[in-house]
Amino acid sequence: MTEEKKYRIEKDSLGEINVPADMLYGAQTQRAVENFPISGYLPDRAFIWSIAVIKLAAARVNLSLGLLLPPIAEAIQDASKEIMEGKWDKHFVVDPFQAGAGTSHHMNINEVTASRANQILEENQIQGKVHPNDHVNMAQSTNDVIPTAIRLGCLWRLNDLDEALLSAANAFTRKSVEFDNVIKSGRTHLQDAVPVRLGQEFSAYASAIQRDRNRILEASEDLGRLGIGGTAAGTGLNAHPDFASRMVSEMANITGFSLELSENLFESMQSMADFTAFSGALRTCAVTFTKIANDLRLLSSGPASGLDEIHLPAVQPGSSIMPGKVNPVMAEMLNMVMIQVCAMDTAVALASGAGQLELNVMMPSIAYNLFEMMKIMTSGINAFTNRCVDGISANPERCRFWLERNTILVTALNPIIGYQAGAKLAQEARRQDVSILAVAEQQIKNGQLSRLDGTPVTLEEIKTALQSVDAMTRGGLMAS
Amino acid sequence: MTEEKKYRIEKDSLGEINVPADMLYGAQTQRAVENFPISGYLPDRAFIWSIAVIKLAAARVNLSLGLLLPPIAEAIQDASKEIMEGKWDKHFVVDPFQAGAGTSHHMNINEVTASRANQILEENQIQGKVHPNDHVNMAQSTNDVIPTAIRLGCLWRLNDLDEALLSAANAFTRKSVEFDNVIKSGRTHLQDAVPVRLGQEFSAYASAIQRDRNRILEASEDLGRLGIGGTAAGTGLNAHPDFASRMVSEMANITGFSLELSENLFESMQSMADFTAFSGALRTCAVTFTKIANDLRLLSSGPASGLDEIHLPAVQPGSSIMPGKVNPVMAEMLNMVMIQVCAMDTAVALASGAGQLELNVMMPSIAYNLFEMMKIMTSGINAFTNRCVDGISANPERCRFWLERNTILVTALNPIIGYQAGAKLAQEARRQDVSILAVAEQQIKNGQLSRLDGTPVTLEEIKTALQSVDAMTRGGLMAS
Amino acid sequence: MTEEKKYRIEKDSLGEINVPADMLYGAQTQRAVENFPISGYLPDRAFIWSIAVIKLAAARVNLSLGLLLPPIAEAIQDASKEIMEGKWDKHFVVDPFQAGAGTSHHMNINEVTASRANQILEENQIQGKVHPNDHVNMAQSTNDVIPTAIRLGCLWRLNDLDEALLSAANAFTRKSVEFDNVIKSGRTHLQDAVPVRLGQEFSAYASAIQRDRNRILEASEDLGRLGIGGTAAGTGLNAHPDFASRMVSEMANITGFSLELSENLFESMQSMADFTAFSGALRTCAVTFTKIANDLRLLSSGPASGLDEIHLPAVQPGSSIMPGKVNPVMAEMLNMVMIQVCAMDTAVALASGAGQLELNVMMPSIAYNLFEMMKIMTSGINAFTNRCVDGISANPERCRFWLERNTILVTALNPIIGYQAGAKLAQEARRQDVSILAVAEQQIKNGQLSRLDGTPVTLEEIKTALQSVDAMTRGGLMAS
Amino acid sequence: MTEEKKYRIEKDSLGEINVPADMLYGAQTQRAVENFPISGYLPDRAFIWSIAVIKLAAARVNLSLGLLLPPIAEAIQDASKEIMEGKWDKHFVVDPFQAGAGTSHHMNINEVTASRANQILEENQIQGKVHPNDHVNMAQSTNDVIPTAIRLGCLWRLNDLDEALLSAANAFTRKSVEFDNVIKSGRTHLQDAVPVRLGQEFSAYASAIQRDRNRILEASEDLGRLGIGGTAAGTGLNAHPDFASRMVSEMANITGFSLELSENLFESMQSMADFTAFSGALRTCAVTFTKIANDLRLLSSGPASGLDEIHLPAVQPGSSIMPGKVNPVMAEMLNMVMIQVCAMDTAVALASGAGQLELNVMMPSIAYNLFEMMKIMTSGINAFTNRCVDGISANPERCRFWLERNTILVTALNPIIGYQAGAKLAQEARRQDVSILAVAEQQIKNGQLSRLDGTPVTLEEIKTALQSVDAMTRGGLMAS
Repeated sequence: MTEEKKYRIEKDSLGEINVPADMLYGAQTQRAVENFPISGYLPDRAFIWSIAVIKLAAARVNLSLGLLLPPIAEAIQDASKEIMEGKWDKHFVVDPFQAGAGTSHHMNINEVTASRANQILEENQIQGKVHPNDHVNMAQSTNDVIPTAIRLGCLWRLNDLDEALLSAANAFTRKSVEFDNVIKSGRTHLQDAVPVRLGQEFSAYASAIQRDRNRILEASEDLGRLGIGGTAAGTGLNAHPDFASRMVSEMANITGFSLELSENLFESMQSMADFTAFSGALRTCAVTFTKIANDLRLLSSGPASGLDEIHLPAVQPGSSIMPGKVNPVMAEMLNMVMIQVCAMDTAVALASGAGQLELNVMMPSIAYNLFEMMKIMTSGINAFTNRCVDGISANPERCRFWLERNTILVTALNPIIGYQAGAKLAQEARRQDVSILAVAEQQIKNGQLSRLDGTPVTLEEIKTALQSVDAMTRGGLMAS
Repeated sequence: MTEEKKYRIEKDSLGEINVPADMLYGAQTQRAVENFPISGYLPDRAFIWSIAVIKLAAARVNLSLGLLLPPIAEAIQDASKEIMEGKWDKHFVVDPFQAGAGTSHHMNINEVTASRANQILEENQIQGKVHPNDHVNMAQSTNDVIPTAIRLGCLWRLNDLDEALLSAANAFTRKSVEFDNVIKSGRTHLQDAVPVRLGQEFSAYASAIQRDRNRILEASEDLGRLGIGGTAAGTGLNAHPDFASRMVSEMANITGFSLELSENLFESMQSMADFTAFSGALRTCAVTFTKIANDLRLLSSGPASGLDEIHLPAVQPGSSIMPGKVNPVMAEMLNMVMIQVCAMDTAVALASGAGQLELNVMMPSIAYNLFEMMKIMTSGINAFTNRCVDGISANPERCRFWLERNTILVTALNPIIGYQAGAKLAQEARRQDVSILAVAEQQIKNGQLSRLDGTPVTLEEIKTALQSVDAMTRGGLMAS
Repeated sequence: MTEEKKYRIEKDSLGEINVPADMLYGAQTQRAVENFPISGYLPDRAFIWSIAVIKLAAARVNLSLGLLLPPIAEAIQDASKEIMEGKWDKHFVVDPFQAGAGTSHHMNINEVTASRANQILEENQIQGKVHPNDHVNMAQSTNDVIPTAIRLGCLWRLNDLDEALLSAANAFTRKSVEFDNVIKSGRTHLQDAVPVRLGQEFSAYASAIQRDRNRILEASEDLGRLGIGGTAAGTGLNAHPDFASRMVSEMANITGFSLELSENLFESMQSMADFTAFSGALRTCAVTFTKIANDLRLLSSGPASGLDEIHLPAVQPGSSIMPGKVNPVMAEMLNMVMIQVCAMDTAVALASGAGQLELNVMMPSIAYNLFEMMKIMTSGINAFTNRCVDGISANPERCRFWLERNTILVTALNPIIGYQAGAKLAQEARRQDVSILAVAEQQIKNGQLSRLDGTPVTLEEIKTALQSVDAMTRGGLMAS
Repeated sequence: MTEEKKYRIEKDSLGEINVPADMLYGAQTQRAVENFPISGYLPDRAFIWSIAVIKLAAARVNLSLGLLLPPIAEAIQDASKEIMEGKWDKHFVVDPFQAGAGTSHHMNINEVTASRANQILEENQIQGKVHPNDHVNMAQSTNDVIPTAIRLGCLWRLNDLDEALLSAANAFTRKSVEFDNVIKSGRTHLQDAVPVRLGQEFSAYASAIQRDRNRILEASEDLGRLGIGGTAAGTGLNAHPDFASRMVSEMANITGFSLELSENLFESMQSMADFTAFSGALRTCAVTFTKIANDLRLLSSGPASGLDEIHLPAVQPGSSIMPGKVNPVMAEMLNMVMIQVCAMDTAVALASGAGQLELNVMMPSIAYNLFEMMKIMTSGINAFTNRCVDGISANPERCRFWLERNTILVTALNPIIGYQAGAKLAQEARRQDVSILAVAEQQIKNGQLSRLDGTPVTLEEIKTALQSVDAMTRGGLMAS
């Protein structure tokens, strides 16, 4: 900071302002920097890339419509491609908490694009002067560009998230196969229940993740419906009649995404419902991972004084005071990531409900929260999969230990002796601290146990029904 | 209360208990009544009907599998049909805040069904005794019945909600046609923007509702995937191997819903994600109606000191102190309904995340909140449509009044004179309190206004661009 | 419903309307009944009582100011007292989801009060006619009455909630004494940690509840600051200059609450912050009980395959399929109640943020949610205390069983041998499946264990530090 | 990145690991860096400072208790002071989404402190070796250090927030004085209401902020109650019996905060209720600012087609397409900040409810969200106050324009002619589009208007009541 910073003077409709000499942005960006020293965060890469895509497409479309001169249009295209590639990221400087609708971030890109385009013209000694509003922003408005950009940005981030989800689902599927022969006590209400296989539990996790993945993909389809071309209020004023449809084709070409034009540009400008819904799909997925992380922490609890049915890989020492302690840190991290996702989903919903008339000025909040949610979900799930799920091992001895003491196996006798008699057996077994079979034997001897229809039950029937806990985990009627 | 209440004594595995003599339920229901005097609410009709459907189907399936005797099975079927029709509603008495997983409400139905079936047997002098657990609940568990019942119950409520949404969308579409020629100031950031037609605004509402409707229908498809047959822990213990698939067919027959069997009964038992997602779709719709209600309240504000662009029908006097005041009460009611829906959605998400291992014991909370959300959304939207939307009239004079003073019409000149010169025109017009055209004329006279490319602009061009605000609402380039 | 319903014709500024002949309310209530068939819920007792208090006080104050004739004022007082006592509850019929600000519920009370007052005049053959607006509502407006009524209604409900909290805290304190000598494994991250006493755990619950209780009482103090007398917009138009201060005294007399007049009637009319804050205090308490209920469910998990350190009283059979199963149903119910409280707190916050200019029209939503939250918290906590906490017993054998296998006792050696050496001891003990002491003995023999400063450690020191797990639960340095 | 990075090898109980050679942290921090590449965020300054305070105090206390050698203790103290000052911030590198309870961030500080202390010893050629666990962390555990550090960190951030709130309240108070003579239409339900003064509206904002400020300060008092000394599970194992109380005194000395020792260390370790409550106080304040920002945007709407009663300072151009547009960007930014605060409050509540037994492992989430909320609230409110509130000007002409057309002034006649007759006057005035006075004159002429008691009313009385809108804003009975 000892070095003196150099400035140049820029002008906008409010007057003159000093802009750092080495920055490509102009007066409006500088005003935003000064107006919004809020969080210190910079714009998400997805939010730079996606607007640059729009600028690139608009330059091409306006050129094709004869509204931009070729050198101007080409310079804008070149600049936009560089911005898409991330070459000028440090010139995007507006805080996420900024002007309503994202005008400041949008003007940041218009200004940087124009400046860089003018450099390119100059470098190539081509005459012409690119203006951020009249050329870069031709036939566009913050009001149609920003919702379109949030849509494209989410689709850009989607691929990574999708892979993370697939990879997590696959990891659980592999484990469900690996643990398929580990028989254990089921637990409902955290209380002893009928037996299940550890692999069955893990298959449920895989299936739940896979379904959430599908749900996110489905919700993302609505994001491909763009309201570009509505310009300032949805009417399309100042955009050529063919602008909107050409833009959609052009952006589909550039991005490879499946895109279509909204049939109601007013709705697309003012309604944030597609974002709320997409955020809701992320939230549902967060709820799923919350449950999974909680389960893994519970199943690996102990080792001495907990369930200890599975072992999570030890990735770091667990305590600053208790030597040798290893904690389920990856699952805990995942819990906290998912709490954050749920919280940010609340922000998206709150922001979505705050639209008024032609516009929802809370769009920067929606953009910030959606991009962030997708980012931390992706990295959180990947770390969890790689450093936790993949390394989980089963503890079959402990599973067997629990199961042997579980009196709820009596359930398998329901079709023979009925619920009521079963309840008495279970209570008695617990009281005497012996097995169900032992109590049944006593009661049969004493003539106290009969079939549901009142006929006498044989010890053989009871034995058959109870003999295979493995069979119990495969369903059906044990007695038959 | 002076009359003495009569009781009979019932018994369960915990001992004896007094049950009101005129009630069909038994010991377990009675215990729940005593254990849970929490909210005073009774179970939702959807939650009685949907479990009765399952009991009806189970009796048929178990009969077809040879596991139930015909008279028993038939009595259960008859009792179940009566319960579905609402004949015994007053016998369902368990508070929504009850035993985890809904065991109490479930046993309430098992007990009432058995009692009523036994009455039927007796009435027809048929021998046999129906047991709530061994017969009515044969091959079932709270753990697979309750999630299945919530799914069926939501689908049952869906039709009414769907009609309410369609009717609301249609009402807005009709209004959008009616108001198609009412030209007015657009407003973005609540600030003057380029002109729109009132009909365009209303078409956006129709479109947004229609899209939410589709989203809800899509989310409801996942509700048709049933985890019945998993019994206590997802393994299907005590259910015949064919039970699950036959149940799904039978329930599809009974309800007419499109149903399928889950391919992972463990996931279907423990994961509440389909409910979170469905609730999320309701929330998105609530966000849409929040925005619409807010807009209508804003557009009808005044009449003297507000926007007053539309008139809502006066359905009741507005104030206890200010005579002649009429308030937008239907829209306000709708806002409050939608706040409640958003809040209850939070409950669904919280409950969904609280599952542990084989089960989510918070299911009664999910059931209560989902059914309630659907109910108040349906009735709230219907009242809003019938008593508010249908009667809205436009105030074209006021719309014109606002528009005439709006300097942002200058935007139509962007393609001719550019953004910068336009900004100066607008500022000058506001300063002098005259029209854009008047200032443009001054500047052309003084040689201060030129085209973007520096060539002189004519007053004709300016006039052409500004002459039709109607044209502006239809988009395109005004100058050409 | 076969009987024909009788009606009388009433009139208001919108025209004539049929009102059930046997109902004391008038035209405006009837309109509200027809406009708002939303939830089917009736107003909370607290919300009838609290407005009646205001009406009673207003009649007295306006009489004392010479603005009401004595017979009119007295009839209003008598009617108000009857309403406070609950004598006319069935005449209060407006759905919680109603006209903004609660005008409909307010007019319901104005109308019933006037009708009943007119009956009283007639019964006593006193001349005069009480008008709902001009007399009952004299110097009042929905806009100052409703926020005042919500405040009074919460204070009215507070006593029961407070007793429930105190009783829960006391129950946990009693248990903390009872369990003071039950030594057990502490668990952090659900992993083995240093020993604690079960009584210490229960003392933490008592302390947390007690603190939440204080917090709720503190937050309730702000509810005693009333904005009565602001009338329609905070200015106090149409109220005598002494009205406001006299009202506060009068209401303090009637209710026994500690009340004061707001120093800014505009803020008190439009700001719902006191309610958001009070709701926040309820939410904090809900979070506390969520944690406690979760802990109890975890500590009582099993019995065979869980922690089983405590036994919750069996209050009902636990499963429709698994005989002999007993679930922690009271704790589960409490979890669901607290989920609902958290969700309703969201509604209060959303409603509170939706105020505009002089008024917050979402007040009926705030009233409904706050009263409901308080009601279910009170009943839920009481049922939980009486039917669960009071009957909890400890399982000291199981606690001892866990503790004996816990290698984290090594922590007590930190001051002697340091963290690093301790970690190795614990790992080794777990590997060999022997006690820490046994491994320490081996290492001392082999000269592998030394003090932190490098000097040799004696077996005596190790024994001293490890000998008393009871001492460990009392803190301090074990070695000294 | 072309330069080759240098590493050194460090060791912990899990084995060897490469650590960047120029970093002061050790193996455990490095593991956390590798385990948690989640958000890319670094720890908040408050969360570094506050733990350093604890380390400084602990070194002093353990020295005073004779448990640390003077050179070791002094080196730790010197290192801690440097860390408090921010000298080593770049060495704190653990993502907020990390190991449960914050062990990783805690070990980061233990390791950096030890390394730096060892450098100091070396620099001063003093013998001795500081160990991160045995010396820096002596008598401490993550489990008591982290909750204590969050408390201290919030108190550290509190001062700035408090000043921001005070400054905002003062700004609104100044404006309320400046606008005290601007009379305008009140608006309730956004509909015309009785007159108020603009200054009264602004006084309500000042008062609401002031009250929230007090509420935050009150909630912060609970943060001064520290559970330090509980060590690993609340029992205080390995801490000298005098450690806890001395720590509190020492930390009070160092920070100047008002601190006390918790009387229940178990509760203080596991209960996050004080944080939920503090977060709730921030949320309430966010709700207040949401309402204020919404109001300012509404009051400044237009200028042509909105209320336009106040002018917000123009701090940047408002639109990328509409020239000359100026938007209420500072208020919009504030709305988005407050949405984020509400969302992060949700995270705090969710995290607080996820504690289990002796510990709440979600503490890093609580820390991250609380510190961030406080930071963006502070900066957001400051920017809003300085760049918006301070520059607001009134538009008295527009206020007068609205008021002149407002028929609700009829309310002032209630005490004379009653509510019913007033309603008719207002309807008639609106129908004829003339003033209330004109209609009253007609009706008096026609003998249609009388006093409440039936006696004839004079035009004089009506004129007196209506003559001064200023008087109406000062309350009381206009007729007298």
